[in-house]
Amino acid sequence: MNHGEKQKIRPLYDSLIDYGKTDYYPYHMPGHKRNGRIKGFSDIFRIDITEIDGFDNLHQAEGIIGQAQERAARLYGAEETFFLVNGSTCGILAAISAVTDRQDMILAARNCHKSVYHAAFLQELEMRYLYPGEISEFDISDAVSPSAVRTALAQFPECRAVVITSPTYEGIIADIREIARIVHEKDRILIVDEAHGAHLGLVQDMPDNAVRQGADLVIHSLHKTLPSMTQTALLHVNGSRVNRERLRRYLRIYQSSSPSYVLMASMDACILEIKEKAEACFAQLRLHYENFMQRMEKCRYIRIGNPNAVQGKGYCFRAWDICKLVISVKGTSMSGQTLYDVLRDEFHLQMEMAAAGYVLAIMTVADEEEGWQRLADALQQIDDRIEEKAVPMCAEASYADDRMMYRTEDAQAAFRYASAKVPPPVKLTIAQALNKVYGSRSSGTAREIPLAQAAGSISGDFVCLYPPGIPLLVPGEVIEEPVVRQIVESLQIGLCVQGVSVNETVIIC
Amino acid sequence: MNHGEKQKIRPLYDSLIDYGKTDYYPYHMPGHKRNGRIKGFSDIFRIDITEIDGFDNLHQAEGIIGQAQERAARLYGAEETFFLVNGSTCGILAAISAVTDRQDMILAARNCHKSVYHAAFLQELEMRYLYPGEISEFDISDAVSPSAVRTALAQFPECRAVVITSPTYEGIIADIREIARIVHEKDRILIVDEAHGAHLGLVQDMPDNAVRQGADLVIHSLHKTLPSMTQTALLHVNGSRVNRERLRRYLRIYQSSSPSYVLMASMDACILEIKEKAEACFAQLRLHYENFMQRMEKCRYIRIGNPNAVQGKGYCFRAWDICKLVISVKGTSMSGQTLYDVLRDEFHLQMEMAAAGYVLAIMTVADEEEGWQRLADALQQIDDRIEEKAVPMCAEASYADDRMMYRTEDAQAAFRYASAKVPPPVKLTIAQALNKVYGSRSSGTAREIPLAQAAGSISGDFVCLYPPGIPLLVPGEVIEEPVVRQIVESLQIGLCVQGVSVNETVIIC
Repeated sequence: MNHGEKQKIRPLYDSLIDYGKTDYYPYHMPGHKRNGRIKGFSDIFRIDITEIDGFDNLHQAEGIIGQAQERAARLYGAEETFFLVNGSTCGILAAISAVTDRQDMILAARNCHKSVYHAAFLQELEMRYLYPGEISEFDISDAVSPSAVRTALAQFPECRAVVITSPTYEGIIADIREIARIVHEKDRILIVDEAHGAHLGLVQDMPDNAVRQGADLVIHSLHKTLPSMTQTALLHVNGSRVNRERLRRYLRIYQSSSPSYVLMASMDACILEIKEKAEACFAQLRLHYENFMQRMEKCRYIRIGNPNAVQGKGYCFRAWDICKLVISVKGTSMSGQTLYDVLRDEFHLQMEMAAAGYVLAIMTVADEEEGWQRLADALQQIDDRIEEKAVPMCAEASYADDRMMYRTEDAQAAFRYASAKVPPPVKLTIAQALNKVYGSRSSGTAREIPLAQAAGSISGDFVCLYPPGIPLLVPGEVIEEPVVRQIVESLQIGLCVQGVSVNETVIIC
Repeated sequence: MNHGEKQKIRPLYDSLIDYGKTDYYPYHMPGHKRNGRIKGFSDIFRIDITEIDGFDNLHQAEGIIGQAQERAARLYGAEETFFLVNGSTCGILAAISAVTDRQDMILAARNCHKSVYHAAFLQELEMRYLYPGEISEFDISDAVSPSAVRTALAQFPECRAVVITSPTYEGIIADIREIARIVHEKDRILIVDEAHGAHLGLVQDMPDNAVRQGADLVIHSLHKTLPSMTQTALLHVNGSRVNRERLRRYLRIYQSSSPSYVLMASMDACILEIKEKAEACFAQLRLHYENFMQRMEKCRYIRIGNPNAVQGKGYCFRAWDICKLVISVKGTSMSGQTLYDVLRDEFHLQMEMAAAGYVLAIMTVADEEEGWQRLADALQQIDDRIEEKAVPMCAEASYADDRMMYRTEDAQAAFRYASAKVPPPVKLTIAQALNKVYGSRSSGTAREIPLAQAAGSISGDFVCLYPPGIPLLVPGEVIEEPVVRQIVESLQIGLCVQGVSVNETVIIC
């Protein structure tokens, strides 16, 4: 095809725009026919086409999309990269499905994304878990340690693959290079859910990405920390351990057969922008971060999570991502939820999430001066008002109905309930348990019993404490007395426990 | 939340726009922070947010997204409707997964979308097929007949569910009401892949949709025939046969945990636009169609598929969608592919697809006068040049490299090769066969043998003739002599057969 063959700066996006300027009339999908009939969508529709001649096919990319994927592969150091239009979710499903057969065993960090559990359900996998330690100063999970991986692989040599989340939601980065060495020593496959780390390894002074550190499969959300549309992601593959034909098959299964060119163009535009401007962008980001941290040093109570704050404590994380600000009020009279609400309602600063003792802010190369200043200003003002261990402040602030409030001192105990110290014994696989409860022939009313009577039964669903969202119980695990106590206590102090009904019942097999 | 509580005409879209105008600063995903740093995406980024307070959550929709889904449900007559951001693909996967347990049997139209085969693979289903008849005047599939469904259910009473595609790609609509009656008589579940029929049933004089005709689960692509973004779709559910908790579980699995608000806003805007303007839009569409058909009557050779052209031939389809123009050159000196190329290269009219004896055009409510006129003008000019059974014309036209050319007379025999008259015997399920060939431990080099020696082996992959894309062989089916002959002949006349290598080998178990 020949729609203006001048050198294109952004080949995919520019080709879509150029094509829209021709007089080619569309007698094909999409049904909006690229015109502006729906108010607000005219610019979007203009680049929203389908697999017509010259525009390649995501599921068999050999042209303009294939080249865009190759650009992404070069940027991250992958042999092969796939655009994902169904988010990191489909990348994780495809990665795990591709490297396992039914009933295989995998080893996963307990604090992995729910799509890992979903993949285990679909593939009927046996799951064994790596329980990360706790960074107690901030009530967040530490990284999974290389030695924990080594121990677990010795204990479960039948594991096919190891799934690590790094960075975590809170920005904690594991030693992937060492973990990859250990996993490959045993000839196993390393999958890194680096959804929160698409910005890693792009410049010298940032921690390296998992692709270059030796992982076999790496999943990147482009939208989380880089300027790309929500739901866009990448799957990278390196080496010969992964059957790529099988991987491609699962990608075709878990993604729409009508992938959005708007999402794909956004990915390519993001990759090109970052590639061109990485040095300048990240230098600016680091400068903002350092200025911000300097201002934060003046706070009496509020602290921002960073490696220096926990130096010499023996934690195993390798780096703490500067794009994740864990803004802690632990040990003060204020709860994370209150801080979140005050920031939103009084200062109009919308955080990513609130935990018991902190709020989380995501900062990216798209944040300019204003974003950093407003946050620092607000936090300094709030810090001035905090009285350590006093009654909660700002009682007059209006809270959204859907947010739960809880007493501060109790709330800050939340994290220790979230990370089970004694892993529950596994009786059934996730698939066995969920299919017993939610089988297609079941009436839809699962077997529910009061939590108080649940000890000794097998869990029929996930029970998770939010945040941080680490499962207390996975379907198929034995509900033991300590976890019942944990749940009861969590509920008593008003924490949000998903998987327990308002009547304090749980679902069992 | 309280972001300007004036009555919103398009609640989801307007809320996103209004929120973008406030001074709330985003310390959350997406990483573009809603600003215009990436050229061309500023308007899109403006409405691309994540699940912050007040903006609900697709996977547990109780607010603004829940209300948008309810509007869609009311428009189509469903008890419950789900927005799909991963296309009809994920709706079909979820629907079939929800109503089956592992190793169940389902009955599906052989010409179903590949996502049905994918669902069968994931759920390890036994597949039995409904082979639609042939509308020989146009070389396309007829609808699946109610009596064929009755016969098949008697033969395979263990089938859990029946999956029907209606309308077909070419616009052929089945008698869903009668099929639903038959399926429900046996207490089985009817899933209708109505991806191509999201515009049905919206006004009196259009054929009704499958939701109102009694199907249990119906999947609609919004982007195919209505003005919505590519990759947007709906899943409707009615009645008590489907375990809805199980359905929701699979929707959470097969869709991104970071669904795009741009896609969701596009769906809601489309639903609201169509709801308000359905009468006017479809009256206009019908007028255009009738004027066009009148002009086409003057053609000597080119014919447009429509019920009158095949009246009294005993076909079982109930209606022929006016949004699908099957533009036939069957029996003339011109092939469908040549017609496609001439329309594109000479007239700049891009068709949806080319088959051996026809091209397919999709017309929607977004097409105005120009689209209909340009097509009619071009077809009349081309018709003037056609000489029946003469040598192909327009030999000087430039053809895209990726399109295969073939001799016209032979090409028009394509369809009869595509629809197998003798169903191949099934030896293994799709999952058994594909896992043998593409298991995670296999080296990636599947067992390939020359097609000429394949008779008697079990197929290890799909073999499909494009178009129409109906599988000649499904993994696990016995490759018999007639199908080998069929494939060899198809290749000899230059047809595109997917699943056969350039060296004429096929993959076997």
